[in-house]
Amino acid sequence: MNPATIKQLTELAIRFRDERDWRQFHNFKDMALSMSLEVAELCELMQWKNGEELSAHLVANRQRVGEELSDVLFWVLVIANDLNIDIDDAFRQKLEENAKKYPIDKSKGRSTKYTDL
Amino acid sequence: MNPATIKQLTELAIRFRDERDWRQFHNFKDMALSMSLEVAELCELMQWKNGEELSAHLVANRQRVGEELSDVLFWVLVIANDLNIDIDDAFRQKLEENAKKYPIDKSKGRSTKYTDL
Amino acid sequence: MNPATIKQLTELAIRFRDERDWRQFHNFKDMALSMSLEVAELCELMQWKNGEELSAHLVANRQRVGEELSDVLFWVLVIANDLNIDIDDAFRQKLEENAKKYPIDKSKGRSTKYTDL
Amino acid sequence: MNPATIKQLTELAIRFRDERDWRQFHNFKDMALSMSLEVAELCELMQWKNGEELSAHLVANRQRVGEELSDVLFWVLVIANDLNIDIDDAFRQKLEENAKKYPIDKSKGRSTKYTDL
Repeated sequence: MNPATIKQLTELAIRFRDERDWRQFHNFKDMALSMSLEVAELCELMQWKNGEELSAHLVANRQRVGEELSDVLFWVLVIANDLNIDIDDAFRQKLEENAKKYPIDKSKGRSTKYTDL
Repeated sequence: MNPATIKQLTELAIRFRDERDWRQFHNFKDMALSMSLEVAELCELMQWKNGEELSAHLVANRQRVGEELSDVLFWVLVIANDLNIDIDDAFRQKLEENAKKYPIDKSKGRSTKYTDL
Repeated sequence: MNPATIKQLTELAIRFRDERDWRQFHNFKDMALSMSLEVAELCELMQWKNGEELSAHLVANRQRVGEELSDVLFWVLVIANDLNIDIDDAFRQKLEENAKKYPIDKSKGRSTKYTDL
Repeated sequence: MNPATIKQLTELAIRFRDERDWRQFHNFKDMALSMSLEVAELCELMQWKNGEELSAHLVANRQRVGEELSDVLFWVLVIANDLNIDIDDAFRQKLEENAKKYPIDKSKGRSTKYTDL
């Protein structure tokens, strides 16, 4: 498949919803809750494993991780759509802001939060 | 700006990380935890508000919502990258699977979980 | 059964763990992650339901809700134990602090966050 | 202070709420969401730290950890109260169930999930 734009993936997600007439259920709180449940499913794959064991487990379960990440992405795209947020644009702006918060010379190789830099 | 592909946004995210030499901190558990913290920030915008009041509040705070969604998206892209998951492809496959789990004729206008359809 | 103290419930939780020799797995990050997964299971019971329908659903599933709340409580008690936190004492202190943050005359009948009071 | 029972801590929590006339805001979804936000605050204390560094950080911030755990506990008690769940009893029953799911001889020293034992 050709690489998709965010816009195209959003259209797929919205078409999926509209075909099922599900927008009526998609209030923002339940959508955000659903996103958090998908993140929990991702985290569950990591429970009680760490270091090399964790990495190996995730590599072995890449298919499953990809599904959970896709489910999270679904809600990112749908919530953005419903609020008329251009997530493509928002993402690039946010990275630029983060670049200001974390100037390379101050943050290189350090995990310190920007408020403590 | 032109519409970006998922691949291009991923490249921006990885470049941001590499410029700061942060890959060393990015074990999967902390990345998933970070994703869940960003979802929490999104949810915090919705706390104690519902219905019309919630929608109006989010519309009024679209900029902020877009930032939180972007932060979630950042971790989706970076985790996928680090596991060599083609998230673009994974997303389309997952939608197809969901389409099978939720056939239009059975699920139209119903919020029932597929296991109960 | 007689009403238990927090201390007694903590002892039950720790005995359960020690009998299985599980302390070795209980690093703080995985315990906090586990707590968040239990909260997710609680939230899952609430997905796509609201208002009267939600309340009725939870009443009908009180047993299940009680189990999820117990799982969350388990981690509260075990994390507190492992950090030598007197959660009983901490809880009462926190309520007193919250009482200062939210003076009755300013916060009565209002859901406003203390920073905006 | 004398060791408190779960019942006494619940009474303190409910009195705190009633004095502020806040029950009107306490629908179950927002309470569960609030619980998840408190867990996120706990997790935030653990972000990007692991092993000895994490433990030392939490010991140094025991006061803060105790506050977050207390906030989680608050919602456990209030949700249980509002559903007439005897959390004290539920907790002991859940431990007994877990003891059956994880028999000592099969689970000792193993982090395997009960479904895989």
